[in-house]
Amino acid sequence: MRLRNVKDTDKILDSCSYLIKDYTNLKGKWNEEFQNNNPIYLEIGMGMGDFLYKMALKYPEINFIGMEKQSKVIVRAIKKYPQKLANLRIIRGDALNLKQVFAKEIATIYLNFSDPWPKIRHQNRRLTSAIFLNIYEDLFKNNKRIIMKTDNLTLLASSIVSLSKFGYIINEVNFDLENSDIYNICTEYEMKFRNMGIKINYLEGIKK
Amino acid sequence: MRLRNVKDTDKILDSCSYLIKDYTNLKGKWNEEFQNNNPIYLEIGMGMGDFLYKMALKYPEINFIGMEKQSKVIVRAIKKYPQKLANLRIIRGDALNLKQVFAKEIATIYLNFSDPWPKIRHQNRRLTSAIFLNIYEDLFKNNKRIIMKTDNLTLLASSIVSLSKFGYIINEVNFDLENSDIYNICTEYEMKFRNMGIKINYLEGIKK
Repeated sequence: MRLRNVKDTDKILDSCSYLIKDYTNLKGKWNEEFQNNNPIYLEIGMGMGDFLYKMALKYPEINFIGMEKQSKVIVRAIKKYPQKLANLRIIRGDALNLKQVFAKEIATIYLNFSDPWPKIRHQNRRLTSAIFLNIYEDLFKNNKRIIMKTDNLTLLASSIVSLSKFGYIINEVNFDLENSDIYNICTEYEMKFRNMGIKINYLEGIKK
Repeated sequence: MRLRNVKDTDKILDSCSYLIKDYTNLKGKWNEEFQNNNPIYLEIGMGMGDFLYKMALKYPEINFIGMEKQSKVIVRAIKKYPQKLANLRIIRGDALNLKQVFAKEIATIYLNFSDPWPKIRHQNRRLTSAIFLNIYEDLFKNNKRIIMKTDNLTLLASSIVSLSKFGYIINEVNFDLENSDIYNICTEYEMKFRNMGIKINYLEGIKK
């Protein structure tokens, strides 16, 4: 998604009370930040924050952290959701650096509409490639759980195979999330696909 | 597929030289029947035999066995392919009885366009349900390999999950076989789907 810069981006980011700037200090201490021992769910590539914010409202007993690479995306999420929630934090950063952010303290990772990197020569950049699965190994507290949604069948197929080869059990696959029984928060982004008649796919992998 | 009976079905079946009638005598001795030690690939639900016959012609170094429940389907396959091949045999029987037919002597199982049994209450009848995977455990010689093709996304999703939970690694998934690099023998049945614009899905699971 190519976006124009938002005016006063730095000012908005600086004044946001739930964007954590110095997050490396919190490595291994995120439960202190949340002041509870509730499980922590991480969304990598939170985009405009629809999913994360609505999940945080629905599940107050879970702590949510959203990670996003681009400032101009984060600033839009902050403008859309200015109110701080006790169980929601966001950070700006790259998934390649996740080990600097978290010790073994994550319960679930969400990957919603991640960049599919459809070309074979870019497949290592997919967030379910073995490179990233290796990184995630050091983030999970107990059991490992990755939940993804995507409209892209190339990414879906490669994710199923990659997770399976890495030792994950494919616990659920669905090729038509809208018409399934799976609980779903439909984001703005997702609604665009629906309106174009594109099916959304759901994948859940777990690993002990 | 509901078919009319073919005239002289019994006569055609009786006179076919590659339909094995007393197959229980061959349990554990199928390589003797083929008079070689080549690997044996089994297709469960061979239908009209297009896939099996073409595979047998293409891969003379592999032995192929087709299993089919219905006489009126087998008789059509025999009429279409009257010539005996050294590396091809067919049997009439039900997959639930496979353990009476084979000892640990199969290398690969093919499931092509199996009945999807789409209703949840019938899911145990799907040829990739745990009931059947348990049966297959006793058929494989060394590594276990199941390859399936289907147009049905319910069957595909449940097969991915079922195989994965049973300990199979999902080695390959493809949602558009026609436009993939995967080698494929397109059967008459499959061509009908293609002509309707329906995508064919491919799944390969392996287990040690």
